[in-house]
Amino acid sequence: MDSTTSPQGRVYLVGAGPGAPELFTLQAQAVLRQAQVLVHDALVAPEVLTWLPPDCEPINVGKRGGQPSTPQRDIDRLLVSLCRQGRVVVRLKSGDPFIFGRTSSEIQALKQAGCAYELLPGLSSALVAPLLAGIPLTDGALSSGFAVVTAHNPDLLDWPALARMPTLVILMGGRALGEICRQLIDHGKRPDTPVAIVRWASRPEQQTWTGTLLTIERTTQGLTLSPAVIIVGEVVGLRQYLFSQ
Amino acid sequence: MDSTTSPQGRVYLVGAGPGAPELFTLQAQAVLRQAQVLVHDALVAPEVLTWLPPDCEPINVGKRGGQPSTPQRDIDRLLVSLCRQGRVVVRLKSGDPFIFGRTSSEIQALKQAGCAYELLPGLSSALVAPLLAGIPLTDGALSSGFAVVTAHNPDLLDWPALARMPTLVILMGGRALGEICRQLIDHGKRPDTPVAIVRWASRPEQQTWTGTLLTIERTTQGLTLSPAVIIVGEVVGLRQYLFSQ
Repeated sequence: MDSTTSPQGRVYLVGAGPGAPELFTLQAQAVLRQAQVLVHDALVAPEVLTWLPPDCEPINVGKRGGQPSTPQRDIDRLLVSLCRQGRVVVRLKSGDPFIFGRTSSEIQALKQAGCAYELLPGLSSALVAPLLAGIPLTDGALSSGFAVVTAHNPDLLDWPALARMPTLVILMGGRALGEICRQLIDHGKRPDTPVAIVRWASRPEQQTWTGTLLTIERTTQGLTLSPAVIIVGEVVGLRQYLFSQ
Repeated sequence: MDSTTSPQGRVYLVGAGPGAPELFTLQAQAVLRQAQVLVHDALVAPEVLTWLPPDCEPINVGKRGGQPSTPQRDIDRLLVSLCRQGRVVVRLKSGDPFIFGRTSSEIQALKQAGCAYELLPGLSSALVAPLLAGIPLTDGALSSGFAVVTAHNPDLLDWPALARMPTLVILMGGRALGEICRQLIDHGKRPDTPVAIVRWASRPEQQTWTGTLLTIERTTQGLTLSPAVIIVGEVVGLRQYLFSQ
């Protein structure tokens, strides 16, 4: 153990938000500035890397050049091991750590090992993507609330209940788009219900497509809709009045 | 018009998050540092006020000492008028501007008047309060998704659909707690479904109560549950394994 490490390690489980450096919280930036090790999934914006101390070691546990990502169990063990070495570790998660983030597994491993940890929220793409596309998820007249689901495995979802929600936000739904639209129509949503798909929210290449439950699959045919957020509901129609660009 | 104002005014509609200064985004802090006028609702943390330029004028349009808050129409007009004076205006909204924020009204007024504006997201208490209480809104086994509603007017909600959602987040529901629990039980949620209430999320006085749909009203009887976030679902039970304090 060298002089820059403390015998008391600590792991910060940090939400990075959708990726743009300016959408990090002040708190997230502050812990990155103290990090001795950065454990991250996907690409991290170059500007974010400039916040790290010069001797901070970045460890990529995400997918790299066709390689599969590190199994969750190995990530859990890595965090415990780094903490036991007395290091200040930042585990950076995209979006918010408690929204489809598998963070519980990491926390439970740290707790069981007696490691100190702290959980820092981040902006979830479920909320940021609609906002950046000019779509409010709630509206006095059109939407008393919204539901957020992942369509990683659409068969597990309660479509009758989801079809009754005024507004629906679907993460990881690009590949299941056709099935999502069919399920919602089959369970009572009007086929002309507006739909928007926002890809790469907050990044320079952010793009939005709009249509209806009946048309959106054809409109986006052949496109890679990942990472994308799908928004279904009358609020999508407000975009024309609210989008600033 | 003095030399510090530009003939091209601009209004930033900015999400403040739940209130703690360290939970502002870097982007929000950056625009506050350039603000010539700050239009805000409720109390703003003293530290946030130190980010403002010394000559920035703060205008409180929220409730003050028993006075009612400024009518929305008057806020809309104020923003347009300040923008037309060529000022850089920050309109600070608590939480996220597009989640129950009445921001659409302000945007439409600005658009109609030809005023330049920009919308900046903030952390919504709907997601931050559960996280800070150690409750993940999603879980591989227990929660495939969640719904967010306001119980400002509980009669308008689709309780049969909400009762089928694995996890439910209810904002502004403190006064309607009894009715919320009754409606969910009447529409099929098990009476022993866990419930948590988080008050003043992210502030030093943050407090959490837990119980079930059957017990939580009695547990919190006589308490002022505002501002509070109510979380209903099996994920509340994970708190004992995930909460760090």
